[in-house]
Amino acid sequence: MKGLGFDIYAHAEALFPLCRSITGDGLRQTLNYIGSHIPLKVQEVASGTKVLDWEVPPEWTARSATLQTLSGQVVVDFSENNLHLLQYSRPINKIVALDELQNHLYSIPEQPDLIPYRTAYYTDTWGFCLSHRKREALSDPAYKVDIDTTVAPGSLSYGECFLPGGEPAEVLISVHCCHPSLANDNLSGIGIAIELARKIERQRRRLSYRFVFIPGTIGAITWLHFNRDAASRIQHGLVLTCAGDPAPPTYKRSRRGNSPIDRYASYVLAQEGHADRVLPFVPYGYDERQYCSPGFNLPVGCLMRSPNGTFPEYHTSADNLSFIRPEALADTQRILERILMIAEHDRTFVNVQPFGEPQLGRRGLYRPVGGQNTGDDRSEFDQMALLWILNLSDGSHSLLDIAERSGTRFEAVVAAANALRAAGLLADDHSQELRADASAAQ
Amino acid sequence: MKGLGFDIYAHAEALFPLCRSITGDGLRQTLNYIGSHIPLKVQEVASGTKVLDWEVPPEWTARSATLQTLSGQVVVDFSENNLHLLQYSRPINKIVALDELQNHLYSIPEQPDLIPYRTAYYTDTWGFCLSHRKREALSDPAYKVDIDTTVAPGSLSYGECFLPGGEPAEVLISVHCCHPSLANDNLSGIGIAIELARKIERQRRRLSYRFVFIPGTIGAITWLHFNRDAASRIQHGLVLTCAGDPAPPTYKRSRRGNSPIDRYASYVLAQEGHADRVLPFVPYGYDERQYCSPGFNLPVGCLMRSPNGTFPEYHTSADNLSFIRPEALADTQRILERILMIAEHDRTFVNVQPFGEPQLGRRGLYRPVGGQNTGDDRSEFDQMALLWILNLSDGSHSLLDIAERSGTRFEAVVAAANALRAAGLLADDHSQELRADASAAQ
Amino acid sequence: MKGLGFDIYAHAEALFPLCRSITGDGLRQTLNYIGSHIPLKVQEVASGTKVLDWEVPPEWTARSATLQTLSGQVVVDFSENNLHLLQYSRPINKIVALDELQNHLYSIPEQPDLIPYRTAYYTDTWGFCLSHRKREALSDPAYKVDIDTTVAPGSLSYGECFLPGGEPAEVLISVHCCHPSLANDNLSGIGIAIELARKIERQRRRLSYRFVFIPGTIGAITWLHFNRDAASRIQHGLVLTCAGDPAPPTYKRSRRGNSPIDRYASYVLAQEGHADRVLPFVPYGYDERQYCSPGFNLPVGCLMRSPNGTFPEYHTSADNLSFIRPEALADTQRILERILMIAEHDRTFVNVQPFGEPQLGRRGLYRPVGGQNTGDDRSEFDQMALLWILNLSDGSHSLLDIAERSGTRFEAVVAAANALRAAGLLADDHSQELRADASAAQ
Repeated sequence: MKGLGFDIYAHAEALFPLCRSITGDGLRQTLNYIGSHIPLKVQEVASGTKVLDWEVPPEWTARSATLQTLSGQVVVDFSENNLHLLQYSRPINKIVALDELQNHLYSIPEQPDLIPYRTAYYTDTWGFCLSHRKREALSDPAYKVDIDTTVAPGSLSYGECFLPGGEPAEVLISVHCCHPSLANDNLSGIGIAIELARKIERQRRRLSYRFVFIPGTIGAITWLHFNRDAASRIQHGLVLTCAGDPAPPTYKRSRRGNSPIDRYASYVLAQEGHADRVLPFVPYGYDERQYCSPGFNLPVGCLMRSPNGTFPEYHTSADNLSFIRPEALADTQRILERILMIAEHDRTFVNVQPFGEPQLGRRGLYRPVGGQNTGDDRSEFDQMALLWILNLSDGSHSLLDIAERSGTRFEAVVAAANALRAAGLLADDHSQELRADASAAQ
Repeated sequence: MKGLGFDIYAHAEALFPLCRSITGDGLRQTLNYIGSHIPLKVQEVASGTKVLDWEVPPEWTARSATLQTLSGQVVVDFSENNLHLLQYSRPINKIVALDELQNHLYSIPEQPDLIPYRTAYYTDTWGFCLSHRKREALSDPAYKVDIDTTVAPGSLSYGECFLPGGEPAEVLISVHCCHPSLANDNLSGIGIAIELARKIERQRRRLSYRFVFIPGTIGAITWLHFNRDAASRIQHGLVLTCAGDPAPPTYKRSRRGNSPIDRYASYVLAQEGHADRVLPFVPYGYDERQYCSPGFNLPVGCLMRSPNGTFPEYHTSADNLSFIRPEALADTQRILERILMIAEHDRTFVNVQPFGEPQLGRRGLYRPVGGQNTGDDRSEFDQMALLWILNLSDGSHSLLDIAERSGTRFEAVVAAANALRAAGLLADDHSQELRADASAAQ
Repeated sequence: MKGLGFDIYAHAEALFPLCRSITGDGLRQTLNYIGSHIPLKVQEVASGTKVLDWEVPPEWTARSATLQTLSGQVVVDFSENNLHLLQYSRPINKIVALDELQNHLYSIPEQPDLIPYRTAYYTDTWGFCLSHRKREALSDPAYKVDIDTTVAPGSLSYGECFLPGGEPAEVLISVHCCHPSLANDNLSGIGIAIELARKIERQRRRLSYRFVFIPGTIGAITWLHFNRDAASRIQHGLVLTCAGDPAPPTYKRSRRGNSPIDRYASYVLAQEGHADRVLPFVPYGYDERQYCSPGFNLPVGCLMRSPNGTFPEYHTSADNLSFIRPEALADTQRILERILMIAEHDRTFVNVQPFGEPQLGRRGLYRPVGGQNTGDDRSEFDQMALLWILNLSDGSHSLLDIAERSGTRFEAVVAAANALRAAGLLADDHSQELRADASAAQ
């Protein structure tokens, strides 16, 4: 298959069968796959390592797991669907009475045909996830449980793809890759991040880009623990997840609420007709919870299509390869690129001739014959952009501020600003750097 | 009679017959009655004492007052209704021509059956208040006026009930008690204050409570003059008046407009479905005029049912014991207690593990098996409250801020904060005390 | 003709025939006319003088201009309408082929009977403006062009009428007077400015007033270049233009958006029922572009009726004496005077008895008998104004702030403030002067 979004979809297809968790070989194989497409540095952090308020857990290895009748008929088999096994199930091999077994079964009565996704990373237990229909059919007095897993010292793996730009300021794209066979959550994010990194790698860029592929929660906590310097350079960040379902795009603001990335994403979604899908920050969701904890309070939002918990396929076997769509994946990537384009170009200039309007005519920036009405043809519009930029470039308005205030498209403002810079009428706002230096020196 | 609100109503009944004014025995008897129910310290301030821009007036004593025909038929008699006599009427005993008498009569043409309440505290005059119907029936050429009063040096009385709490910060409940036989304005406020003080006296309390029972205007001015220290400790204040009529509760904001008491009262009224009855500050009304004068600018609002001047019974003989209702009095007390509950519990904590989320699971604050949707069952809701508190406890959000931002009930936020404190994850925000100390030291 | 607005209209009639431009004799004659009615100081600034980023252009003299058929039939004649000649046309006398001639003709296809107004101040070219109907009738292969003009060193003229007041703070009224026979744009502004200056000259005034009559853009730039001190004293400014057409009044805010002049004009327009005609600042329009350039950022708005470019007569021969109306001119002047009345009287006082309410009764400022409802009769209303002023006069609320907050008419607030000042209860806010001094000393 070829076409818009199919390259991303192909990554999801390739990765779907692996049984990922927050540690272990499924996660390592996923990172290997990513590393075969983009430059990726993989880190291994030993179990037991203290990270912020947490500890890296032991590594989980799941070899096989079956629930059988006493006569040997297989009822549930992990090899058929890796959602069947409660993540971090401890090993067990014994006959269990149905009554007791029920305490270890997870199903969804309202969605009787779907297998739920459940985890018990930090609990010493075992369990199976299965369809409610199959669970209700259990009628024998006892069943044979055989779970062959290991929970033992090992390490937690994560990968980073760093693409340096002209400036040290960084854009963080954070993708969790700990979920087993779930397509939207989050093979969609992994696939888009791979393709976006490949594209950015080939482009000139002002900003530096850091893609992190991490297990959820504990991975973000581990990354933050070991990367305080990089974290302090994050100027804009996005958690990318649930990015391939048919719903329109959604942006969840950072804790700051009005950081530049919040404004960029809101601006793009508004232009795309989805202003209603810009959501306020809540301290629940994905790894923005960690980046936006009050100690870090980083400008990191979350780009999705359907938000977590709002679609019936969420955390079930229905979040499979038929739920995500190439065109939705491609649309998310396109929107992400528009947001990053603004991040690349939004800057604050100062008008170096701020007393009165500079004479644009002698610089070839004004029409030769005056007197006519201001029309809305392209050249006139650009002239208005020139006047807006000159008027507002006092060090407190960025190009996006000017675009929003003037009702001019951001791209037109960037083009007009470039013309004014070329004419020597705009300069970089060094006062901002001085302020930043002063602030950093404190 | 027994039941919700009848204890308050009984106070109004007991006090109704007394002829209160801004000084004098009716006021003293009222304070004695209050002091028989709650610990009350009564102050007497001598006439002529300078208080702020004012002077304590002479004391007024009214013994009797009649208006009679020359043949001795009694037309108006103060002993029948103490509203009949213009407050602070000077003594007079003579025959007055009807034309001149009219200048000394007060009635309400639009409410021809009601006696108005009128005062002339600072004017050397005399007068009768009567129904317009009775006034229009006057047809003799002259009448006999006999007013037996004294305006002479004495003192102004007020009472204070102070209930110390764990902290020196004070809650002020201010009640005017200078009106004669008017039930809603303000026997309602007096009755509720008595019952509230009795209840608070028996409770553990963080804050200290000061109930002041004062004549309106001059009493508040006198109290402020002599109690600058106590005034400086007022953290939250409420003027309580017109608290027993059938209208829904009303809150009038303090001059500051968004002080904590304004937010607490607005929050409670909004929760009760009365957000539309939160009114902006205006420099007219009751003693909030004095507390909110620009030099003091105290955080004192006004809790009422029908605001002054907006109900036809206001300042007339129709504001009697049949106008106020036990259930309305009880409802005002309940709302007042909800407001004070928030004042007791609204605090600002700091998350002592602000880098990343703390691991709630090992502290028994997180569900053991993950993966399911966030539901709205109680335990889930509390988990969201935990996350909100941890995320926003950065020293700039109080528990009420967090309740409002998260859409969680204040009581649930307090419960979750207590759990986090018990787990050692929240600490008092000492930076605020340091700021307060620094501010006080200036 | 006599009556409201006819005096202003007569100025427009007298000035209409002159061919004004940004320099030259038409402009000088206009200033002479103005100077015959109000004290006017005329400045001449030599061509070539550097002014801010610009240079004063050479002076343009237009003696005659005709377009004729080769047989001598006059097609276009400057002496018939001074809009016919492109402003700053260079001299030319030759036969021009129709094809080439078309590059030098200006007409409006959508308004085929009107002559447009076009300029080429800074372009070395020539041209005729004519009706599209006449242009389409041109069918000869060539025409004779005879333009007798001079573009040569000379000077740029502008006039100032300064009326000193009790304080050095200035009100700027800026009027462009460079347009040839266009009535609304801007003989309307010139006429109103003359009559307003005559009226203000005869009045007591707190503020100083400076009327400037300048050519557009280059004149404002020249004035700003040579008058930095005066510019720094501008407390309120208005550009006055398009002030005589039948549309309702319009106010365009200064760049600051909420400077006092913005608030005054918005308040008056709202009271007049035209709140919808208060427009945000845009960096296009009249000389507010220069006053509101970021380096100066002066509090200068623009008062108009129909904004530039929004009416079909704009910059065409239809903007003639029948387009403007005496009653509209008079209405603009009336609104302007209301705005300036507020500027004269809006001040910030401090309550010198800020602790509690001062006792108004002993100062004759309170009704002698209390107890009645607050009514809306005049005396009551004034009493509310007294209370509002006392409550808000803490140094951070001006009289207009108080009028807006209290819903009281500004005039009533001024009257009440005067009564309070007379009673010694209000004082000038010297802290503001101290702040201003401190700011000026930096």
